[in-house]
Amino acid sequence: MSTKVGAREGVGVSQQDHPLYQERDPREVRRVIREGDWMGYTANLVPKYTQTNVVILPKAYAFDFLRFCMRNPKPCPLLEVTDIGDPEPKLTTPGADLRTDVPRYRIFKRGKLVEEVTDITSHWKDDFVGFLLGCSFTFEGAMVDAGLPVRGLESDTPTFTAFVTSIECVPAGIFHGPMVVTMRPMEPAQAVQAVQVTSRYPRVHGAPVHMGDPSQIGIKDLQKPDFGDPVEVRSGELPLFWGCGITPQAVALASGVDLMITHAPGSMFITDLHREEVSLG
Amino acid sequence: MSTKVGAREGVGVSQQDHPLYQERDPREVRRVIREGDWMGYTANLVPKYTQTNVVILPKAYAFDFLRFCMRNPKPCPLLEVTDIGDPEPKLTTPGADLRTDVPRYRIFKRGKLVEEVTDITSHWKDDFVGFLLGCSFTFEGAMVDAGLPVRGLESDTPTFTAFVTSIECVPAGIFHGPMVVTMRPMEPAQAVQAVQVTSRYPRVHGAPVHMGDPSQIGIKDLQKPDFGDPVEVRSGELPLFWGCGITPQAVALASGVDLMITHAPGSMFITDLHREEVSLG
Repeated sequence: MSTKVGAREGVGVSQQDHPLYQERDPREVRRVIREGDWMGYTANLVPKYTQTNVVILPKAYAFDFLRFCMRNPKPCPLLEVTDIGDPEPKLTTPGADLRTDVPRYRIFKRGKLVEEVTDITSHWKDDFVGFLLGCSFTFEGAMVDAGLPVRGLESDTPTFTAFVTSIECVPAGIFHGPMVVTMRPMEPAQAVQAVQVTSRYPRVHGAPVHMGDPSQIGIKDLQKPDFGDPVEVRSGELPLFWGCGITPQAVALASGVDLMITHAPGSMFITDLHREEVSLG
Repeated sequence: MSTKVGAREGVGVSQQDHPLYQERDPREVRRVIREGDWMGYTANLVPKYTQTNVVILPKAYAFDFLRFCMRNPKPCPLLEVTDIGDPEPKLTTPGADLRTDVPRYRIFKRGKLVEEVTDITSHWKDDFVGFLLGCSFTFEGAMVDAGLPVRGLESDTPTFTAFVTSIECVPAGIFHGPMVVTMRPMEPAQAVQAVQVTSRYPRVHGAPVHMGDPSQIGIKDLQKPDFGDPVEVRSGELPLFWGCGITPQAVALASGVDLMITHAPGSMFITDLHREEVSLG
């Protein structure tokens, strides 16, 4: 793979021709990411495979965070928790390395985002635990296959649209904070079908948490997302909102946890789990 | 059963205490209806059983109407078609009589509603064919069981709310006309769940055909339904719209068919099919 795709190529630059969108093997996509040749968003990459959010925490916080995920399954659907100190997600993606196989990482210290890096090998510690939380990019392929519009995939550069809401997560231990949601606009009859399609994928956020009036969940302006890029909401369309795995990052800020490493929003870990392995069938 | 319930008791008079709401045997409810002691709405009667719309046509129109139902399964989900001249719906409700077992009937002639009666024995002809189309009263019990609000059942007198829309049905032979829908308001998160619950019941209209802005389907004022009674739509609620088996009555008016006999809106035929017999399981 010769063309490097950087972090900010996500905005305004066409990636449509990049050969990685044609690649069908998740191992090959991870290899390109590991080599640092893809630092952009992972939306629409290997659409048949399950993508995940990544949260890495010292063991001291791991049990609290596990309970936090259990109490907030819509934004934080857990797919795997690694062994202490082991960066390999053995169950979903044997052979992968959570220190290198994510396009970009964010490092949070004492409730602040302090750094964005493409490799965390030098940051890794023996007491780290990795959490993989299902990502809604996974069901976007199913929506497209069902004939539904996914506006973020219609642009020259596949993207997403996410907002911090006024919905408070159920706290656990030190972890508390607001739910983050992704938004996709649909015509009403498509919105009904989108509920049906995404209900089949509870392990990658499942059905929407909200539909319609954004102000009901504290979103002031649909054209000013907190993460990703704005997408057009056309006349007569209903915005649909799904729980989003950026939530732990909002929680890191709110909770002031000593240390949390996550993926950068939109730049996910790609597993070896086929999309239908996380569906209800 | 000693207390007669007439056609217009549906509005403003409490029926809550009527013993028929406690009855759990559909045969007993049909007996009361057959004896003319219940001419009101059937919402919330034997909520575990499947209720249906009724359409009766001379054989000459039956094939066209059958195709019409096949082409419009959301408003017209067919549960049974009787043998020519036979008023007994043998498959769903052996022993019942479509001439007597509906609380009220409407008779349409040459595209006009000419009469409302409680018994059509004297109108029955040897060439009549009966069509049973699933009714959304059937899934209202499932919604209640799931903790969802059904506003029409919260009033003193169980009722419903239905509108003629600007959605044109797919025509078949002489049959054409607008889709009629029922409306139930929900909070957005409940609306998501209502899509999930009703998706399990495609044979009694299934998932909504529309959500949100009523004007998109030609409804001007939610407080002025064409059938049933208005219900409160509270601040922050989303109106949901389901296909409705009153559609053939709107079609009778639009198509000018020589003769069609139907149930009166809200006063349904109650079958012996358990609700779960028409679910996806």
